[in-house]
Amino acid sequence: MATTNGMLDPNDAVILLIDHQSGLFNTVRDVPIPDLRNYVIAIAKTATLLNIPVITTASVPDGPNGPLIPEVHQYAPHAVYVPRTGQINAWDNPLFVKEIEKTGRKTLIIAGTLTSVCMAFPAVSAVQAGYKAYCVVDASGNWSKLATDTTIARVTQAGAIPTDTFAIVAELMQTWNRPEGSRFAQILADHVCPEYKCLMESFGKAQAVVKDGPETHLDKFQ
Amino acid sequence: MATTNGMLDPNDAVILLIDHQSGLFNTVRDVPIPDLRNYVIAIAKTATLLNIPVITTASVPDGPNGPLIPEVHQYAPHAVYVPRTGQINAWDNPLFVKEIEKTGRKTLIIAGTLTSVCMAFPAVSAVQAGYKAYCVVDASGNWSKLATDTTIARVTQAGAIPTDTFAIVAELMQTWNRPEGSRFAQILADHVCPEYKCLMESFGKAQAVVKDGPETHLDKFQ
Amino acid sequence: MATTNGMLDPNDAVILLIDHQSGLFNTVRDVPIPDLRNYVIAIAKTATLLNIPVITTASVPDGPNGPLIPEVHQYAPHAVYVPRTGQINAWDNPLFVKEIEKTGRKTLIIAGTLTSVCMAFPAVSAVQAGYKAYCVVDASGNWSKLATDTTIARVTQAGAIPTDTFAIVAELMQTWNRPEGSRFAQILADHVCPEYKCLMESFGKAQAVVKDGPETHLDKFQ
Amino acid sequence: MATTNGMLDPNDAVILLIDHQSGLFNTVRDVPIPDLRNYVIAIAKTATLLNIPVITTASVPDGPNGPLIPEVHQYAPHAVYVPRTGQINAWDNPLFVKEIEKTGRKTLIIAGTLTSVCMAFPAVSAVQAGYKAYCVVDASGNWSKLATDTTIARVTQAGAIPTDTFAIVAELMQTWNRPEGSRFAQILADHVCPEYKCLMESFGKAQAVVKDGPETHLDKFQ
Amino acid sequence: MATTNGMLDPNDAVILLIDHQSGLFNTVRDVPIPDLRNYVIAIAKTATLLNIPVITTASVPDGPNGPLIPEVHQYAPHAVYVPRTGQINAWDNPLFVKEIEKTGRKTLIIAGTLTSVCMAFPAVSAVQAGYKAYCVVDASGNWSKLATDTTIARVTQAGAIPTDTFAIVAELMQTWNRPEGSRFAQILADHVCPEYKCLMESFGKAQAVVKDGPETHLDKFQ
Amino acid sequence: MATTNGMLDPNDAVILLIDHQSGLFNTVRDVPIPDLRNYVIAIAKTATLLNIPVITTASVPDGPNGPLIPEVHQYAPHAVYVPRTGQINAWDNPLFVKEIEKTGRKTLIIAGTLTSVCMAFPAVSAVQAGYKAYCVVDASGNWSKLATDTTIARVTQAGAIPTDTFAIVAELMQTWNRPEGSRFAQILADHVCPEYKCLMESFGKAQAVVKDGPETHLDKFQ
Amino acid sequence: MATTNGMLDPNDAVILLIDHQSGLFNTVRDVPIPDLRNYVIAIAKTATLLNIPVITTASVPDGPNGPLIPEVHQYAPHAVYVPRTGQINAWDNPLFVKEIEKTGRKTLIIAGTLTSVCMAFPAVSAVQAGYKAYCVVDASGNWSKLATDTTIARVTQAGAIPTDTFAIVAELMQTWNRPEGSRFAQILADHVCPEYKCLMESFGKAQAVVKDGPETHLDKFQ
Amino acid sequence: MATTNGMLDPNDAVILLIDHQSGLFNTVRDVPIPDLRNYVIAIAKTATLLNIPVITTASVPDGPNGPLIPEVHQYAPHAVYVPRTGQINAWDNPLFVKEIEKTGRKTLIIAGTLTSVCMAFPAVSAVQAGYKAYCVVDASGNWSKLATDTTIARVTQAGAIPTDTFAIVAELMQTWNRPEGSRFAQILADHVCPEYKCLMESFGKAQAVVKDGPETHLDKFQ
Repeated sequence: MATTNGMLDPNDAVILLIDHQSGLFNTVRDVPIPDLRNYVIAIAKTATLLNIPVITTASVPDGPNGPLIPEVHQYAPHAVYVPRTGQINAWDNPLFVKEIEKTGRKTLIIAGTLTSVCMAFPAVSAVQAGYKAYCVVDASGNWSKLATDTTIARVTQAGAIPTDTFAIVAELMQTWNRPEGSRFAQILADHVCPEYKCLMESFGKAQAVVKDGPETHLDKFQ
Repeated sequence: MATTNGMLDPNDAVILLIDHQSGLFNTVRDVPIPDLRNYVIAIAKTATLLNIPVITTASVPDGPNGPLIPEVHQYAPHAVYVPRTGQINAWDNPLFVKEIEKTGRKTLIIAGTLTSVCMAFPAVSAVQAGYKAYCVVDASGNWSKLATDTTIARVTQAGAIPTDTFAIVAELMQTWNRPEGSRFAQILADHVCPEYKCLMESFGKAQAVVKDGPETHLDKFQ
Repeated sequence: MATTNGMLDPNDAVILLIDHQSGLFNTVRDVPIPDLRNYVIAIAKTATLLNIPVITTASVPDGPNGPLIPEVHQYAPHAVYVPRTGQINAWDNPLFVKEIEKTGRKTLIIAGTLTSVCMAFPAVSAVQAGYKAYCVVDASGNWSKLATDTTIARVTQAGAIPTDTFAIVAELMQTWNRPEGSRFAQILADHVCPEYKCLMESFGKAQAVVKDGPETHLDKFQ
Repeated sequence: MATTNGMLDPNDAVILLIDHQSGLFNTVRDVPIPDLRNYVIAIAKTATLLNIPVITTASVPDGPNGPLIPEVHQYAPHAVYVPRTGQINAWDNPLFVKEIEKTGRKTLIIAGTLTSVCMAFPAVSAVQAGYKAYCVVDASGNWSKLATDTTIARVTQAGAIPTDTFAIVAELMQTWNRPEGSRFAQILADHVCPEYKCLMESFGKAQAVVKDGPETHLDKFQ
Repeated sequence: MATTNGMLDPNDAVILLIDHQSGLFNTVRDVPIPDLRNYVIAIAKTATLLNIPVITTASVPDGPNGPLIPEVHQYAPHAVYVPRTGQINAWDNPLFVKEIEKTGRKTLIIAGTLTSVCMAFPAVSAVQAGYKAYCVVDASGNWSKLATDTTIARVTQAGAIPTDTFAIVAELMQTWNRPEGSRFAQILADHVCPEYKCLMESFGKAQAVVKDGPETHLDKFQ
Repeated sequence: MATTNGMLDPNDAVILLIDHQSGLFNTVRDVPIPDLRNYVIAIAKTATLLNIPVITTASVPDGPNGPLIPEVHQYAPHAVYVPRTGQINAWDNPLFVKEIEKTGRKTLIIAGTLTSVCMAFPAVSAVQAGYKAYCVVDASGNWSKLATDTTIARVTQAGAIPTDTFAIVAELMQTWNRPEGSRFAQILADHVCPEYKCLMESFGKAQAVVKDGPETHLDKFQ
Repeated sequence: MATTNGMLDPNDAVILLIDHQSGLFNTVRDVPIPDLRNYVIAIAKTATLLNIPVITTASVPDGPNGPLIPEVHQYAPHAVYVPRTGQINAWDNPLFVKEIEKTGRKTLIIAGTLTSVCMAFPAVSAVQAGYKAYCVVDASGNWSKLATDTTIARVTQAGAIPTDTFAIVAELMQTWNRPEGSRFAQILADHVCPEYKCLMESFGKAQAVVKDGPETHLDKFQ
Repeated sequence: MATTNGMLDPNDAVILLIDHQSGLFNTVRDVPIPDLRNYVIAIAKTATLLNIPVITTASVPDGPNGPLIPEVHQYAPHAVYVPRTGQINAWDNPLFVKEIEKTGRKTLIIAGTLTSVCMAFPAVSAVQAGYKAYCVVDASGNWSKLATDTTIARVTQAGAIPTDTFAIVAELMQTWNRPEGSRFAQILADHVCPEYKCLMESFGKAQAVVKDGPETHLDKFQ
């Protein structure tokens, strides 16, 4: 662990994306729904970029919960989908746990809708089963902010590590000094912190002005 | 415990509904009062559905605190009511603790108005007495949000587990793969997350359209 | 008008309930969705109680917008439903306007999801067509609070009267001194201001205590 | 006017997109910046779809204000860009007004960053010059919410019509009963109200379930 | 009017305090209830200090609405109470209007719980009857903030003047240069803006330090 | 400890009221200042009622920090004031600690303005010195809500117990079944949760109605 | 007026800065106090830069209201101070109005603490006296946000123009194409919208990078 | 440690200011950006006043992240800047850690933009490496408030101490009884809690009034 300075080891990581379903999304109140969708996309793209295993599952997707949002498998085409047979806690599904065990990895990055159920329950179970568990709270989505407040306290108490989408992407990429650096920047600007797009545009323009000269004509202006 | 994957064991659970009184409700500021009433109903109905013992109590209900809201015993007719003789902490009432002991169960699910007093005090006492205690914060109701913030920290520090109404219902039901599955769905849609009702209606309509054909006539529309 | 002291005349009123559809509801962000549903129910019940004509309509209910919430026609069984053929502004639908004209009434009470479109557009059109228009903003539901801020300003500027669910029910009932008085109280307590239920419960208990004597036993307490 | 029922006439409309620059965007505090960008895109796409003239301008784009966000001209390729020579109120720029006059249209739809300056000043000027002016407040972006509150009051007082992005798109399209109907739906779902995407996905899935049968296997579940 | 510079004339003013009842207070959500109580007290005391007529009324005070808060008549002992016989709009009660007419005054200062009903309805009626009406919004209390937003727009549109407790006290007292000056300061510090109390305490202490010398001993401190 | 069921023992308690000064109060942003003043009064009155030792101190009260608010010693006349000689952490003042030691008690109830400094520092020191420390967060007052969030986490981590004014008063009084019961109710209604006053008034009125008969005359109303 | 396109004419403007006193500032709750101070500074500096007359006044500055903040006269050394003799509405002070009349100007820009009193009263009076009045709401400061909401409605109704600090500075400077252009940019970046400072720094750095070359060494990064 | 009563020892402290860059600042949403800048300045000035080592670093400052805000090195001229070569976690940069080790100190005070990455990662690493770590959350700046909530929980769980700017300055200065006392007061009033400035001005004026006599002339007022 010394080699990661207490950070997670991407080579030991598995990403669990649980119940990110269009119907459930419409009950989310602690994160703007469009942002939530983007955070999930960011994690899916990051997994693909770093070749981290992804396991997905859904709860009764043929009912009002709705289908998994299509972007999950679209941006993480290597993800393995495990159907459930009714269990609320995905960890209660033996196939789901078996799929995790197959990877031989012990660090789980968990996001799930609703946060206080679909993210929190497997996180508690995983810690008890001896895994290191990261909870990506804002890539989960909960039915009330108060429920999120209690969930952060609960998973922290249980020994899981609460985190956010920006932080988990950063913790996985570790350094900008890698071939995929600019692709990570694109993920963050497109899906996590779109304010950053403005910075990139302004940066480009400021440099272009040096090369191309100014364009505004203010005769009297100094 | 392995069998529950770190989740609570419904067969070991007792639900304590403390001081959900109409007068006290009017002092609640951290949860919308109508929502609070519904969350308490959801827990009462869940208890009845799963045959979990419920113990209720009230603090001076013949004064301005007002009576227990009628839905508590209406939806949990098996609940046992323990009158108090002035104690603020229900755990200080020997009859109340005796009633818990009678069940032989060791996992307590506690909700109480006000959160920082009627939920928190028995939770702290229960943990000290060797019980596992779940605190349903949003089925309690507190006089200020800041007081709720400190209470979450306090009960977590004491070793009680903070949770919310949706999560505790889900943790108790464990799986949709059970005869009462649809009744749980109804409880959640009616009392916890009524946004879900819209999803059920839309789902039904979408399927009816397949069977019955469309009804909107847009001649030129494709 | 003198007889109503500037208030609306219930005998001149028609209620327009526009596009309260389950799918659209899931996009509402300025009013809690369960509250919105209840406000619509309150208006439907009030209309029935006072025998005020109700005209409903829906926008492409066989698509993702979803069906009208069933309570609209359930609680206002006398309501007339006018299908639309694509028009966004219900006033652009000749059958809809004709249905209004049939009543011979000139005071319109309008609620519609989304507020800035389905409520605001017909309100502006109605005022221009010579009607007096009341906009029930919180029985409408909008996609953002900022959009509601601009809509209140817009309809007020246009000469329509902005109001809320509690106020419109009160303005329609005029006085408690009528046979249906207690039924209005029930509507308000059940659907508009459920905090009031606590008051009714506490009131009943306080009076019962006088008759039945106290129940709490605090030997030393005075 | 009777033909539009008090709504704007798309054939008389010109859209003014003023100072949507990447640097200025970073000072916006009343609308989430990513949302603001999307609202501007929605208006640009709508203009293109309906062939409505668009006039753009920027304030010192070669300084810290930054360049126009590229999407403006990308999605409204027919837009005419008018450089300014220092004027804060775009209406003070004779070329800008001349460009408006060239269209022969008298209904202006105005959005500009910052709202209280770049949107409000031209709106006040336009009304005084005899134009009908719509102010798209949430496609503008302001440096504080309080400044937006005063701006809504100011432009309404001046006779301009405050509106929001969803409403202006809807007011321009008028009806779903047109060939471009589904493209408008796409604009709204992609850029204005992405919650709607979930509804479309759930709708599709619900219908597929009828055709393809259910996929979840709950042996005991009814 | 010139003599008041457009401000109200205290000698022409009547204060109407409508339905400030303990039960209704418990439904207020736009103003903290303790603040609301204090604002009503401030107006009652101001009326007494300036000998301005006060007319009070209550809506079914023998039911769950509860009694008038006692401070109204305690601090405005000259107030005249007019019982109602069911009318929601106090203006519909002939005795209430007659009591106003008896004063021969034409400027009404109105506060009432709930704002959108008990304050707004009489305000609209009063303006129509030829009175000048001031609406003290924060001494009224409403069941939701959104309802207050629409009410401010409605009464302003109707020609009534929206104001707040601090402003109305200040508009009535006109100048500090009067014998009761310090008593007004006390009212504002005790009931409207208690932060001011800190200023008075700090002011007194700062002056005492000059006279009595410092008390803190920091040997090395300069 | 068993006798208190994990709650604090009032006979072992000392209350520390630190730096509740009028100038510092004017910098508080996480609790409304008038509420803060009342919470401090509530604690002072409770201490007097239960004869719990109170130790106060102030930081440079002859400068802009201002004097202790007078209510501290007014309502806890037995309080001992310890002047400081510059130390920010009151625990660094040997006289202050000596005063605590004199009581022979080991449970400290600490409130101080600013929360993150004047409450948190002594709390951390006290725990390290072997005391049990309760932090009354909302009777302290902080310069930002974010600073309060970090402070709750910090003192909880250090082993101090975060609590609120209502809870600490309740924990100290233990039971309503004591001679001073009604005086505690008065403290809570006057200073902590004034919404409760409304309940008491409504309760009294409801009972009076039974005895005195109704007063509202609605001839036709049933 | 045609020459200003409906905007104010700086050559006709007088700025009234009323009661910006340190004690009153400590009661402000709708604008962060440090921001308020900066907005007043921005207006003072703008006045000096454009040579616009400034008239100041204070209400009992030798009492707890405190002195005018020193920056008012520091940054507008040409400002004329008019002492008051108790009047709350500065317009009731004949010397104050006389000072305005001396300028021969008819457009007043008004800011005053508290907004609903010290800004609103003179604004109403000024409009009645035939002046054009601009109300700079966020350079005023009010005791509650709700009071600000009612004040915006009141002054708009009275015919005064609500505005904000950024907008009024922009409306006064009119164009960047003037010698003082960069000094206005400095005022806005230093006192109104400090986020802009970051933009200027980033802009400078981006251009420096073109000239000086990059400084980060990421060997493997592309 | 006994000598510090559990507080940090300034002689053992090193301050790490990480990635306070103008571009990153424009993505901050949990602290007002101007406040954040001031908090960083306050820490820099405190470090200089107490001669505490400061180590700074930046992440790709020649790209859109932008340069370090100039005030960091301006107010802490003794700070050592360590360039990074791509590492996101500054602790992964060997030169950065070496610079810390050179000081021989073991208590780290860490602030970094973004909080959940640039502050949190080094904090976790430092604790694991055996350091005591203080996290100055509000001098860091995060992309969302929810991300800050999870970060406070994460670093607390890891054993780092969460704190705020006011508290860390106070903890470092320890006592007012030192020669630099008044300079600390100036730092706090200028950069952390500018409301305090008003208190200082009022204090000075109140004392001047004693010496110079009153200035307001209210003939009749006492």
